[in-house]
Amino acid sequence: MARRRESDRWRIKPRTKLDLSRIDTRSTAGAPGDKQQTKDASAVLRARLAQLQARLYAEGEQSLLLVLQAMDAGGKDGTVRSVFAGVNPQGVRVVSFKAPSQEELAHDFLWRIHAQAPHHGEIAVFNRSHYEDVLVVRVHSLVPEEIWRPRYQRIRAFEDLLTVANTKIVKVMLHISKEEQRERLQERVDDPVKRWKFNAGDLEERRYWDDYQAAFTEAIARTTTHACPWYVVPGDRNWYRDWAVLTILVDTLERMDPRFPAAAEGVVGTIVE
Amino acid sequence: MARRRESDRWRIKPRTKLDLSRIDTRSTAGAPGDKQQTKDASAVLRARLAQLQARLYAEGEQSLLLVLQAMDAGGKDGTVRSVFAGVNPQGVRVVSFKAPSQEELAHDFLWRIHAQAPHHGEIAVFNRSHYEDVLVVRVHSLVPEEIWRPRYQRIRAFEDLLTVANTKIVKVMLHISKEEQRERLQERVDDPVKRWKFNAGDLEERRYWDDYQAAFTEAIARTTTHACPWYVVPGDRNWYRDWAVLTILVDTLERMDPRFPAAAEGVVGTIVE
Repeated sequence: MARRRESDRWRIKPRTKLDLSRIDTRSTAGAPGDKQQTKDASAVLRARLAQLQARLYAEGEQSLLLVLQAMDAGGKDGTVRSVFAGVNPQGVRVVSFKAPSQEELAHDFLWRIHAQAPHHGEIAVFNRSHYEDVLVVRVHSLVPEEIWRPRYQRIRAFEDLLTVANTKIVKVMLHISKEEQRERLQERVDDPVKRWKFNAGDLEERRYWDDYQAAFTEAIARTTTHACPWYVVPGDRNWYRDWAVLTILVDTLERMDPRFPAAAEGVVGTIVE
Repeated sequence: MARRRESDRWRIKPRTKLDLSRIDTRSTAGAPGDKQQTKDASAVLRARLAQLQARLYAEGEQSLLLVLQAMDAGGKDGTVRSVFAGVNPQGVRVVSFKAPSQEELAHDFLWRIHAQAPHHGEIAVFNRSHYEDVLVVRVHSLVPEEIWRPRYQRIRAFEDLLTVANTKIVKVMLHISKEEQRERLQERVDDPVKRWKFNAGDLEERRYWDDYQAAFTEAIARTTTHACPWYVVPGDRNWYRDWAVLTILVDTLERMDPRFPAAAEGVVGTIVE
């Protein structure tokens, strides 16, 4: 048996009866201390992440895909900035999936996703992903249920395809409360520096809160697997959320155990002239 | 007239008679102090770069393309890591151009490059670029001169196309000495952690040093323009090189002057419920 990891705290095991309303969005369970102590611990994890990324890149045989999903204002952008600032951008690629284009809609829903899969040695971060096709698409009935419901199985098959090609997939839901979302949207209205992020459509979407929670619950329950787990991270406190995501990534990369490749034959002892 | 900027020190003006052998690769001219003081200045520039990147992203109307070229072991990877670690990876995309694939060779030489152009709000970094098509291609006669020579003009036309679509292009040659390259390649042989980067082909390429210097000289002289300048940065000392590239980027972004967009009508005063 693999030994227990800190990140198991947030992992959703297959066949768990998931109830998002019972996961405290303000939790700081397991944090190494108060806010400042946790930030200090995150700085250590960030340095460790940078080391592991350098090895992954040098090895060039495995890749890591982090899927980030959340309600609007759930902290996806802030997480990317906080977790990956400090990692060599040459080895990390962030892909933000927006509403699909006409060209993308003229293909299967995984076509644009597959095209962005990480190559060996690379970390890819999906800010939104194929899960939107069972979240917003379901909530607004953009396609009928007989189309979106079989997507859980199609997603599992797709993720399995990547997994056997040495891509480790970890999926994280940043879980905030409805009140926290209200405060953050209000801040976007009130703060001139954040106002550009405000989108009147977010207020409309906020009315569908319960439908989104139901869609998240089923999506996570049906697609969390041993190989491609979902993690639900309490997201109301940014410093806890950042530490949790860093912990998940470091635990995952340590298990992947990338190594600097051995020297090719004849290299050792070469004299450069 | 635009006021003189610190980065003008390394800028190659159009119609300059360029002689790379007269540019001291160990220069520290203009550095704000000794090694440690320069590193401290770079930390300040890095924070400024992060601020400017956040504005560029929020504004979403202009983009920045940094083209990095150098001899083998010239420090391209190290520059990317040092300059951009700390910037939000969501707004920076690093593209490493390798030897072209069969599919890429079946198109014009700018096809694969064009596909990677930054979108508005984004910074793209090209680690090698279309300039390889007048460098390695010329040195090894991979295509005849009547094909590669007209590429200077084609590159200017391509870069003009991007420029008028609000992409600012800056091109940097990291300029090292032949002796510095020897030391760095030897280090790759001797240091187990760096050995994975060693490529026996680099020893072969090293024999063409003078041909590459000639090819760089003509490429730079023929494609440096007021709008899309080349900078030749002394690269033997990493700390000076990083500071210089940071200075060039910050100067460039300050001139681009990205702004947080104004609020859409009716947003101010909205109450989120």
